[in-house]
Amino acid sequence: MTPHPFDPLRPEEISLAAEIVKTWTGDDVVFRAITLAEPPKKDMVSFLDIERAGPGAQSPAPPPRQARVQLFHGRVLHEAVVDLDRRVIVAKEALHGRHSYIDTGFMEKAAEACLADPRVQEEIESLNLPEGATVVVEPWAYATDGVKDMKDRWTMGWFYLRLSDNPDANYYAYPLDICAEISPTLQVTSVYRLPSGANDKTHSRRNEFDRRRIHTTSEYHPDLVDDRRTTTRPYHVSQPEGPSFTTEGNLIRWEKWTMRIGFNYREGMTLHDVRYDGRSLYYRLSLSEMFVPYSDPRAPYPRKAAFDLGNDGAGINANNLALGCDCLGHIKYFDGWLTAASGTPVRMPNVICCHEADDGILWKHTNFRTGNAVVTRSRVLVLQTIVTVSNYEYIFLFYFQQDASLFYEVRATGIMSTVPVDVGDSAVPYGVNVAPGAMAPGHQHLFCLRVDPAVGGHANNSLVVEESHPLPPDEAANPFAMGFATRSRTVEAEAGLDLDFASNRTFKVVNEARRNPVTGTPIGVKLLPCYSQMLLAHPSSYHARRAEYATHAVWVTRYRDDELFPAGRHTMQSLGGEGIASWIQERARKGDGEESAVRDRDIVLWHTFGSTHNPRIEDWPVMPCEKMVVGLKPVNFFTANPGLDVPISTQERSCSVLVEGRRPE
Amino acid sequence: MTPHPFDPLRPEEISLAAEIVKTWTGDDVVFRAITLAEPPKKDMVSFLDIERAGPGAQSPAPPPRQARVQLFHGRVLHEAVVDLDRRVIVAKEALHGRHSYIDTGFMEKAAEACLADPRVQEEIESLNLPEGATVVVEPWAYATDGVKDMKDRWTMGWFYLRLSDNPDANYYAYPLDICAEISPTLQVTSVYRLPSGANDKTHSRRNEFDRRRIHTTSEYHPDLVDDRRTTTRPYHVSQPEGPSFTTEGNLIRWEKWTMRIGFNYREGMTLHDVRYDGRSLYYRLSLSEMFVPYSDPRAPYPRKAAFDLGNDGAGINANNLALGCDCLGHIKYFDGWLTAASGTPVRMPNVICCHEADDGILWKHTNFRTGNAVVTRSRVLVLQTIVTVSNYEYIFLFYFQQDASLFYEVRATGIMSTVPVDVGDSAVPYGVNVAPGAMAPGHQHLFCLRVDPAVGGHANNSLVVEESHPLPPDEAANPFAMGFATRSRTVEAEAGLDLDFASNRTFKVVNEARRNPVTGTPIGVKLLPCYSQMLLAHPSSYHARRAEYATHAVWVTRYRDDELFPAGRHTMQSLGGEGIASWIQERARKGDGEESAVRDRDIVLWHTFGSTHNPRIEDWPVMPCEKMVVGLKPVNFFTANPGLDVPISTQERSCSVLVEGRRPE
Repeated sequence: MTPHPFDPLRPEEISLAAEIVKTWTGDDVVFRAITLAEPPKKDMVSFLDIERAGPGAQSPAPPPRQARVQLFHGRVLHEAVVDLDRRVIVAKEALHGRHSYIDTGFMEKAAEACLADPRVQEEIESLNLPEGATVVVEPWAYATDGVKDMKDRWTMGWFYLRLSDNPDANYYAYPLDICAEISPTLQVTSVYRLPSGANDKTHSRRNEFDRRRIHTTSEYHPDLVDDRRTTTRPYHVSQPEGPSFTTEGNLIRWEKWTMRIGFNYREGMTLHDVRYDGRSLYYRLSLSEMFVPYSDPRAPYPRKAAFDLGNDGAGINANNLALGCDCLGHIKYFDGWLTAASGTPVRMPNVICCHEADDGILWKHTNFRTGNAVVTRSRVLVLQTIVTVSNYEYIFLFYFQQDASLFYEVRATGIMSTVPVDVGDSAVPYGVNVAPGAMAPGHQHLFCLRVDPAVGGHANNSLVVEESHPLPPDEAANPFAMGFATRSRTVEAEAGLDLDFASNRTFKVVNEARRNPVTGTPIGVKLLPCYSQMLLAHPSSYHARRAEYATHAVWVTRYRDDELFPAGRHTMQSLGGEGIASWIQERARKGDGEESAVRDRDIVLWHTFGSTHNPRIEDWPVMPCEKMVVGLKPVNFFTANPGLDVPISTQERSCSVLVEGRRPE
Repeated sequence: MTPHPFDPLRPEEISLAAEIVKTWTGDDVVFRAITLAEPPKKDMVSFLDIERAGPGAQSPAPPPRQARVQLFHGRVLHEAVVDLDRRVIVAKEALHGRHSYIDTGFMEKAAEACLADPRVQEEIESLNLPEGATVVVEPWAYATDGVKDMKDRWTMGWFYLRLSDNPDANYYAYPLDICAEISPTLQVTSVYRLPSGANDKTHSRRNEFDRRRIHTTSEYHPDLVDDRRTTTRPYHVSQPEGPSFTTEGNLIRWEKWTMRIGFNYREGMTLHDVRYDGRSLYYRLSLSEMFVPYSDPRAPYPRKAAFDLGNDGAGINANNLALGCDCLGHIKYFDGWLTAASGTPVRMPNVICCHEADDGILWKHTNFRTGNAVVTRSRVLVLQTIVTVSNYEYIFLFYFQQDASLFYEVRATGIMSTVPVDVGDSAVPYGVNVAPGAMAPGHQHLFCLRVDPAVGGHANNSLVVEESHPLPPDEAANPFAMGFATRSRTVEAEAGLDLDFASNRTFKVVNEARRNPVTGTPIGVKLLPCYSQMLLAHPSSYHARRAEYATHAVWVTRYRDDELFPAGRHTMQSLGGEGIASWIQERARKGDGEESAVRDRDIVLWHTFGSTHNPRIEDWPVMPCEKMVVGLKPVNFFTANPGLDVPISTQERSCSVLVEGRRPE
């Protein structure tokens, strides 16, 4: 089967792309990524229009199949675009001064270099660690702070202790009071002790490891936790006629929805050409970036700040999801493909799972005159992917609903990063003590969901900001002083905007060219935002300059191919000034405003959300999921509740079981 | 079995209470409500302490069992408190100038009176309605507007048309251009036409019913909707070993949680003595009020504003929940009991359902060094009750989680109230046209969740307001300008407070007297608020004076027995000035501030939330649920993730099914 233009590269395409690149580089090549270069939207729109017209109509000619390749050649990072049909390199660019995403192999070597370094060994020796304990080095990408030369790739080594023989023991319970800087050539250039107390910026004392730290309550692995509760009885989901979705390659059809699923090393799961009842709603939905800065201002902690997409990659770190563990019910899995340094395709099994879930009641009404109740249950389609970024886990979920709304949920779980603290010192104001000698510092998770709308088609979209306001008391027009009405404005130019629940501020993408036949208003969709604190770092900080998207909750830009990453394409040790705010500013400076115009145009909506995570002890040792939810709902897009025709719920269909009181045994 | 002091009155207790009241009133009595008078907290706390100590300890003497009775005697509304053990009336009060909650029988008579009235008949005649159509009168409680004498009970009659023979046809699709005022003695005192156009305040034209309004797309009942989708395949939940909860009367035990379920005519479902792992968290959780004002300032629409608890009653209007329809899985139902006018107990079957649901992943971590993933699924306990208030439905749900957090969810569904509009006029700015000649006006739903905390016991609780703020850039203390920290203040006096996500403002109830052994900080719980617009009505309006709680999102008050209703005890045609703001103001005026003190005291937290519902056509004819969610989570209350011991998820336990691609048939 020919790949659909939105399909990720297939393994044979990855191999072919590598082969084509090698006609240029020869053997002097280290591949970092070979991924689909998505076709320009203008080509895709005409393709999709023809495809939509269905069989019998003209057969759509797919746009050229192209790969985007990131590689080292002559020790310089390059990006190339390869045409797989014509077997030629159509573009190449040397990315001087840029860094590729994190290289796991390099990180492993950095950890080894740390442990082999005599100064490190001397510091470890001075700690007088318990017999049989294992020192674990966790290398982190260096968050730009202006101290080290930004041209080179630096790494920070953070030290932990694994007390138990069990390799799954939780070493984050024992952060050690050592830190190392590792050079691009794997030399340990500095080793120092970490801060102690609220005001100590670098720890000068060479304290021994405090034996009072040893405890047994920070484990989570079943081999290390004895008393599991036995009260939770099994819960099974069965679908005797199978699931309601069908798949055809990467095309999913479910309850009037259609969408194409994509996957790449950086964004992980992406969705394309999302329609309901054949009507276009979204061209592309993706998590576009996430930034995790920590709160602790004591050096060297400002260097802990991760771009988990740009630096780490949601695709690269995607979990192999397990049936019955990560997902319950009737599950369809999708694999992903990455690339080895040699250019060989690497299969990532089960990176996305797709299943249905019951979500309670979709709608209900009882006619109180007849006593007749009509109730439908809500079935949702769940698409889930999970990433592990060192200590943390992120679960990313799309929920599609039968009423044409959809929700994007992030669940944060995993283990919090810890730093050492003096036993008994609870006065360090940057976190909470989760175990003796271990503090979990405050941090933020700032996500950016990129919504590329296609409301009644990709062109002619506009962003409307609607608020609800009281009407002024007025003897004639508002005599009882209770009236209220909405006020709307259409955004004319690219901008970053803020949320305001107090005015019920609502962001709608509408198509002014298409009016709803019943309401007489433009068809649209609205954002149900996740109200969150924005970036706390000062505007002058590198954090703020690098994570430009994290300063406003809603951004609207004019659509441009390849403008996918709101903190910039290359985030590793980036210096800032390449994100969404800079794009907007640059275009606003130019010409007559046409480049910035977003009314009645092809636009992109970006939503920044997340959490300021001031840890609780209840988040330790593994954090119960913290959920963050964003929604998108049609607004005067259809002509009635799109879920009106969902089957009425009956016991015959649902086969529930009546429970009489059961007393404890 | 002796009732537990928190148990609702049993039918025999209701009968007994009526009997005791009749020793005073004789036969001159119309009962409106006979409900549990909950024991004073001081009595309950000592009872619960002894109960908690368990068998073997001193047997707890229950506080006196008392009933609160609302009744008419000598045509005057009274409230009496009856001691059921001693069989005496211990308190009685004549409520002159107060109105009881809505009387369904009276409302039916009001509708009949409307249709029998010659002026109404004349107006109906003048409409020249289609042959065979039925006029339906929907009587509404009169929302105080200062026009009618507030001493008497007035009713508004709104007119609709049922075009079909089917009694379940949606008459809200045909609001008629007639309105009537009905006097306390069931006389129709005025009949008039409704506004037309944005600026017409009373419709003077006697237009005929516009035949262009006739349409077929506003039905929802299965008998009237032909093309139901057939794609939704069955979805079953089975628990081969039964559910994980046990019940003993109204006591529910589930996954370390214990709680007692209550039910009364006004609040519907209530929860009492909510503990986790035996540790006290909440003394009482309840929805305390809800207010639904409409936006349209044109008279007589300002009279549409409902206190759905105080006027209608969440218990009175609770649905009889049906197995497999309202609830899926293994379901335990609870009945409620109300009272007939005669004092006879009336059974309300299945008003609350209790079941378990799967909620995706509770926590997960993969050790990237070993590749070993540990994942637990989240099981939740769901307690659901549904009320029908004329056109609208509200679904109220408590979700208990295994990690000691809980969520309260409101789902708004049902049919939107409509008003007539000229066919083709989409310029009325107070709503959206949902069918030809029918507009659904904007309105607000403002709920108030009452949280009576007992964090480490009911006394010594305090409200802490915590915010996260950037640290100022500082060469020594914050050299990289990225640091942030929390700032907290403890609220000293009763107050109404506002939300602010921009500062990550967090409301915690803490017990300053109890410190967490690991973190060294006071134990607490935090509110996860639902960010919502507050009341839009002007402070001078009756709406604002009556719905005092709707002006701030968070209120803290000193605990007082019977202070349960933040818009006042009697909301029917109330004049205002009796709600939570007035209580606070009155106590602040008195004495030395002791009455207002809320630090280290027995306190109550109230959370106002809801939605400004600017209707969408997608909410018509029956609205897909709009969800509003509030959460409560422990903060440094336990010493680790309370869900750490939840069984690890395995395919053996979950019995999921692998789905291969299924292509459309």
